[in-house]
Amino acid sequence: MLIDIALDAMGSDKSPEPELRGAILACRQLPVRVHLVGPQESLRRGLRDILGRERLPIEIVHASEHIAMDEKAAHAVRAKKDSSMRVGLKLVREKKVAGFFTAGNTGAAMATAKMVLGALPGVDRPALAIVVPTLSGNPAILLDVGANVDCKPQNLEQFAVMGELYARSVLKISRPRVGVLSVGEEEGKGNDLTREAYALIKQLPVNFIGNVEGRDIYNGNCDVIVCDGFVGNVALKTSEGLTRLVREMLKASLTTTVTAQVGALLSRKAFNNFKRRLDPSEYGGAPLLGVRGVCIIGHGSSNDRAIMNGIRVAAEFAQAGINERIATEFTQSNPEEQPPASSF
Amino acid sequence: MLIDIALDAMGSDKSPEPELRGAILACRQLPVRVHLVGPQESLRRGLRDILGRERLPIEIVHASEHIAMDEKAAHAVRAKKDSSMRVGLKLVREKKVAGFFTAGNTGAAMATAKMVLGALPGVDRPALAIVVPTLSGNPAILLDVGANVDCKPQNLEQFAVMGELYARSVLKISRPRVGVLSVGEEEGKGNDLTREAYALIKQLPVNFIGNVEGRDIYNGNCDVIVCDGFVGNVALKTSEGLTRLVREMLKASLTTTVTAQVGALLSRKAFNNFKRRLDPSEYGGAPLLGVRGVCIIGHGSSNDRAIMNGIRVAAEFAQAGINERIATEFTQSNPEEQPPASSF
Repeated sequence: MLIDIALDAMGSDKSPEPELRGAILACRQLPVRVHLVGPQESLRRGLRDILGRERLPIEIVHASEHIAMDEKAAHAVRAKKDSSMRVGLKLVREKKVAGFFTAGNTGAAMATAKMVLGALPGVDRPALAIVVPTLSGNPAILLDVGANVDCKPQNLEQFAVMGELYARSVLKISRPRVGVLSVGEEEGKGNDLTREAYALIKQLPVNFIGNVEGRDIYNGNCDVIVCDGFVGNVALKTSEGLTRLVREMLKASLTTTVTAQVGALLSRKAFNNFKRRLDPSEYGGAPLLGVRGVCIIGHGSSNDRAIMNGIRVAAEFAQAGINERIATEFTQSNPEEQPPASSF
Repeated sequence: MLIDIALDAMGSDKSPEPELRGAILACRQLPVRVHLVGPQESLRRGLRDILGRERLPIEIVHASEHIAMDEKAAHAVRAKKDSSMRVGLKLVREKKVAGFFTAGNTGAAMATAKMVLGALPGVDRPALAIVVPTLSGNPAILLDVGANVDCKPQNLEQFAVMGELYARSVLKISRPRVGVLSVGEEEGKGNDLTREAYALIKQLPVNFIGNVEGRDIYNGNCDVIVCDGFVGNVALKTSEGLTRLVREMLKASLTTTVTAQVGALLSRKAFNNFKRRLDPSEYGGAPLLGVRGVCIIGHGSSNDRAIMNGIRVAAEFAQAGINERIATEFTQSNPEEQPPASSF
């Protein structure tokens, strides 16, 4: 039994080449059927050129438009009714596929997913969650990393619930430690938002360890790190910038002496391995948690392998039934906050 | 003519040893007279043990108490009237010294400085500024990194003015590029705070380049990066955590093969160099901008060299007259906002 996954064939910086090759890798290795969404004719030709006579469970679904990386999300989502993102997400809504993956414009993907799929009952704001490597060797989840600026404490509370479910059901962490990203560990530390969120999350039936600091993102002391989308986005992009600086500084430092040049040569492969471990796209992209359907967003620089990983994560999310779990959690735990009116 | 600098002898994790040795290094190399603040008797003995018969311009100023790293700032500042921080900062207030340096509890140092020195006229909130290395090879300034959570747009505007003056007068950048840390480059991107701050800073006579992102902290595209203290602190501590992760992952990655072990050996020195460049204490600590006097705060892990650098930076700040420039800037540019009442 194959899992149907829709893939935005026009997402990544070098699309559709990585998408075509990534879909092929995925179909060879995973129990998936990939629905490639994009310009039918050119995708068909591209696939044929790579596959030759090999037959794989890949379908092509036509979409006449696509959203570029530098397009403004709000405008693109409104204007392009037949974009590959919109068509792919409609397949999710119509239950023709179990999940969707794109390596395209993150803002546009989030906006399109919210519009086409809508939020799960009880979820006020969907959140983008990324998996980061840690000193302990286990991954941690950071959310929200960009879907929501100017959050309310209740939003952070919901992020905690969704992130905890993600850690348990997909990353298989049995009792995930949940923390609020702040500027000090004591309960009173932080800004108005985190202090109020602290009080709310403390009441939840999760393994709440209180405030954590920026350094805890990577040290393995916490499994689910909750923050508003502004702070999460700054933390994520600061990390990207610093990783690049580290690489360049090490390179420069290593090549100042002859012996160091040897060191640089020998350690290049090691550094590349490491870089891959830090790269979110190797983890298969970031899920948008809290929408009615599986939507995973990858990095624009995704290569074949990253695309395959994205498809894998979409399939894992679909199998774990995480959205159903989130919906159950919110409708059960907050009946009084979300009166079961005619809305659902 | 020596510049008088007060040094908190009881600040760093291993105090007073690094402070004693750092003061000695500073006096041997720089035109400074160091006023070591702490328990008179033990400091005298410690100095004598290291110096022997050498005579250096070091004075000892007695303080019977000191604030520990893990003490709560608010309580420590109130309770310990004779702490080395308070006594040292009083020397600044009384103009007995030109500046103060501590490698102690950051929160306590900021609180004590605000209480003992007070804010400069026109400055609503002093800000802690750090210098970070960038890809371009030139340093950049990030502020605020922890003095103020829950900022107003006007606070960020003032940070921009103070950071720009710092970059010009101490780092000698002739026309510093000033940016607001946000989640996208376009003017409309960000949260309520950054959007309003953008509009205010745009009006200032500074080289404003608009919004910058987390990755711009380290890429050399911006000289002065302005943010609220919560976001700045998260960015700073995330960087510390990631630097540690990078080191550990590289080490692990390098030692998995024999050739990589050789690589590890060869590159260790290079990595240590690099680590030093990333370490704020090597840059001599973070100035608290906007108080009536020079107050530089270093890392708790400061060694002899870092203490010497802190003393050097305090002297440089005093010589650059940055506080006088900030005061002039604010009283000239905002006469209507800060009515010259009897307060000054």
